Amino acid sequence: MNISESFGCNEKGHLTIGGADAVELAKEYSTPLYVLDEQEIRKNCRGFVNSMNEYYGGNGLVLYASKAFSCKEMYRIVMSEGMGADVVSGGEIYTALKAGFPMDKIYFHGNNKTYDELVFAIESGVGRIVVDNIFELETLNSLAAKYGKKIDVLLRIKPGVNAHTHDFVRTGQIDSKFGFALETGEAMEAIKAANASVGINLVGIHCHIGSQIFDISPFEYAAKVMLEFIEKIEKDEGIEIVELNLGGGFGIKYLDSDNPAPFQNYMERVSKVIKSECAAREIKTPYILIEPGRAIVGAAGATLYTIGAVKEIPDIRTYVTVDGGMNDNPRYILYKSEYEAAVADKFSQERDFTVTIAGKCCESGDLIQENTKIQKPEIGDTLAVFSTGAYNYSMASNYNRIPRPATVMVNNGESRVIIKRETYEDIIRNDV
Amino acid sequence: MNISESFGCNEKGHLTIGGADAVELAKEYSTPLYVLDEQEIRKNCRGFVNSMNEYYGGNGLVLYASKAFSCKEMYRIVMSEGMGADVVSGGEIYTALKAGFPMDKIYFHGNNKTYDELVFAIESGVGRIVVDNIFELETLNSLAAKYGKKIDVLLRIKPGVNAHTHDFVRTGQIDSKFGFALETGEAMEAIKAANASVGINLVGIHCHIGSQIFDISPFEYAAKVMLEFIEKIEKDEGIEIVELNLGGGFGIKYLDSDNPAPFQNYMERVSKVIKSECAAREIKTPYILIEPGRAIVGAAGATLYTIGAVKEIPDIRTYVTVDGGMNDNPRYILYKSEYEAAVADKFSQERDFTVTIAGKCCESGDLIQENTKIQKPEIGDTLAVFSTGAYNYSMASNYNRIPRPATVMVNNGESRVIIKRETYEDIIRNDV
Repeated sequence: MNISESFGCNEKGHLTIGGADAVELAKEYSTPLYVLDEQEIRKNCRGFVNSMNEYYGGNGLVLYASKAFSCKEMYRIVMSEGMGADVVSGGEIYTALKAGFPMDKIYFHGNNKTYDELVFAIESGVGRIVVDNIFELETLNSLAAKYGKKIDVLLRIKPGVNAHTHDFVRTGQIDSKFGFALETGEAMEAIKAANASVGINLVGIHCHIGSQIFDISPFEYAAKVMLEFIEKIEKDEGIEIVELNLGGGFGIKYLDSDNPAPFQNYMERVSKVIKSECAAREIKTPYILIEPGRAIVGAAGATLYTIGAVKEIPDIRTYVTVDGGMNDNPRYILYKSEYEAAVADKFSQERDFTVTIAGKCCESGDLIQENTKIQKPEIGDTLAVFSTGAYNYSMASNYNRIPRPATVMVNNGESRVIIKRETYEDIIRNDV
Repeated sequence: MNISESFGCNEKGHLTIGGADAVELAKEYSTPLYVLDEQEIRKNCRGFVNSMNEYYGGNGLVLYASKAFSCKEMYRIVMSEGMGADVVSGGEIYTALKAGFPMDKIYFHGNNKTYDELVFAIESGVGRIVVDNIFELETLNSLAAKYGKKIDVLLRIKPGVNAHTHDFVRTGQIDSKFGFALETGEAMEAIKAANASVGINLVGIHCHIGSQIFDISPFEYAAKVMLEFIEKIEKDEGIEIVELNLGGGFGIKYLDSDNPAPFQNYMERVSKVIKSECAAREIKTPYILIEPGRAIVGAAGATLYTIGAVKEIPDIRTYVTVDGGMNDNPRYILYKSEYEAAVADKFSQERDFTVTIAGKCCESGDLIQENTKIQKPEIGDTLAVFSTGAYNYSMASNYNRIPRPATVMVNNGESRVIIKRETYEDIIRNDV
């Protein structure tokens, strides 16, 4: 198995995560348990930050896309790596604030920020607001008057580039709830409106072309489209655009067979495009922002479960039932997302047993993976599901009133709880 | 609009829920807001309870399937209607316990109850444990020895009847993570094992044939299959089966065009089948359990949102963006579930405006409904989405670190909070 450097095998034949024995972690902290490897997270942060320095002279900032996995400790880690953060709600702003994050390095996204969230962002000193629509722009302009200051914004643009894992298309993305469309002229209208708003300081533009993208060419293409737009804004309207935020969407390994482009290559190739396009168009090279989230934490995490039942249905399949499910990992029932899994107690053995991993929720669709290969499972074994660092804890629910698991951070074999396990008392806390 | 009696229109032309003005509710409690109508919930409870009395001489118990919507107040209401409850986790047991629910009327389901949950159930005095698999049976038997008492159980049987909304099939359900298969002989082996376990008191059998079923004939068919099995158990093995739990799955109206069978007809028709089958097979009529969940709360609820943006994409669609989304209602992104929606402020007007309702989550799939008709939407209007009483709050997440909405219960125009809105402090409570 070759998901990331976080996962290894020790002399007992047990899975290790960040150097800690996964079977021991399951015993110490109980299951289900999210486990993250701090070294891998920091390595991923540095991969992006260093490539920004090396290939683009440091003329940019790497923003951690919090929605992948947001908690106080995560903000502390990315902060210590010199990164900023992209947030999408008042709750994420609040978490970053409580973690002592430098608020000027926060970019606030969202297609429907509420009035209260915008007020909270302004009062907290959030660095940039990425404006999604004209009503938001008007609200911000009136808030600027109220607070007696200019608000620094980027506008979210739909560049018409829609990338999937293995390919991308030039059209179609106009049908999105996010942002201003380029091709209809809506984006340029918004630029002019922002520029004409006394309370608004138009700093830049933003785009986001998709998720779990394995190739770099869609990003190169999006950069070209955005620079063409910047040239048009500057030459036709005389408005200077200082920041170009190219969003995220960098793919990670979920399956052994996945082969995403290395992050390091991203800034190498995209920087070239930016520099040559800017030279050809005679515009200044912009300050660049990129927003990796999944790429930072996804493959640095695994979820540990205890196997509670093994149910063989002759000629059909074998269900291996674990003590979590769609409540801690809704991605299979949502998107049929693929994962690798293994029996942590028998990690050195062959994965030659085909099973369907079922959760404990009272819902027939509550599966974590179908027809996947693991080592021969036995009741009481610890089952690991890999690449669950992103969009697992963050999307978890209390469906069936099941408490959400703890998250443990491992650093060179040492572990610590960074999110406590919910208790039954937490579950009923808001019940009257 | 004709979803349930909960929804009406007042002299201002506003939507009313349980007699309360929805626009006023949105103002008073803020949005997003789950609203439930107590009268409709109680009417639904009484529909099932009365039909059990009228058509089956009261020889049974109606269990509220908590997973549809579990909180302390909900247990208080169903308790006051003389019902029992079906629970699927330690968290639901805990909630019922804290609400003062009579624990002997609790049936504990689940395909992977953990050891701790089984201990908790026994120590709490849960009335029946519905055993899913042989490992659970063995665990219970050893716990019985430890606690020095017999444990009353039902066995969950896969009857091979798989019902969908409009039809049902006799085969296929053998491929399920739940229960013991009839056709392979696994179910009879489990019956014998339970009967031979000194700590186990085998009280009955249970089946569950599906969800959102509009017709009664699949239930009649399942009852026949289960009674045929009871006859076989009694005649071949000399084991008496006292309780037959026929599960839930009663369909409700999500769309105006939906036409589920009235609940009252269920016991009328199923009772006839049970009585005639028992007479023909010369077996005693069993004590019957049925488990409505969605049918109790689903159509008694609506979610209120505030419209934050209206985004027209020429020749494609109009997005109406609300201040909630997949975090409070994940059923559209999960199952493409259909809902009716309306502008509460203009409820007396025609619904002649086709829109796509988008949530505020940073996820392109975060939609609540596509291409649905509502009244002409304006920013600041209150949008109501109907039939959200079940599987909305219960499946809600904090994705994007968005706090979960409050739930308000309305009773003849009077409203009260039954689940408090989460705060940002709640969001970070377990962060270290």
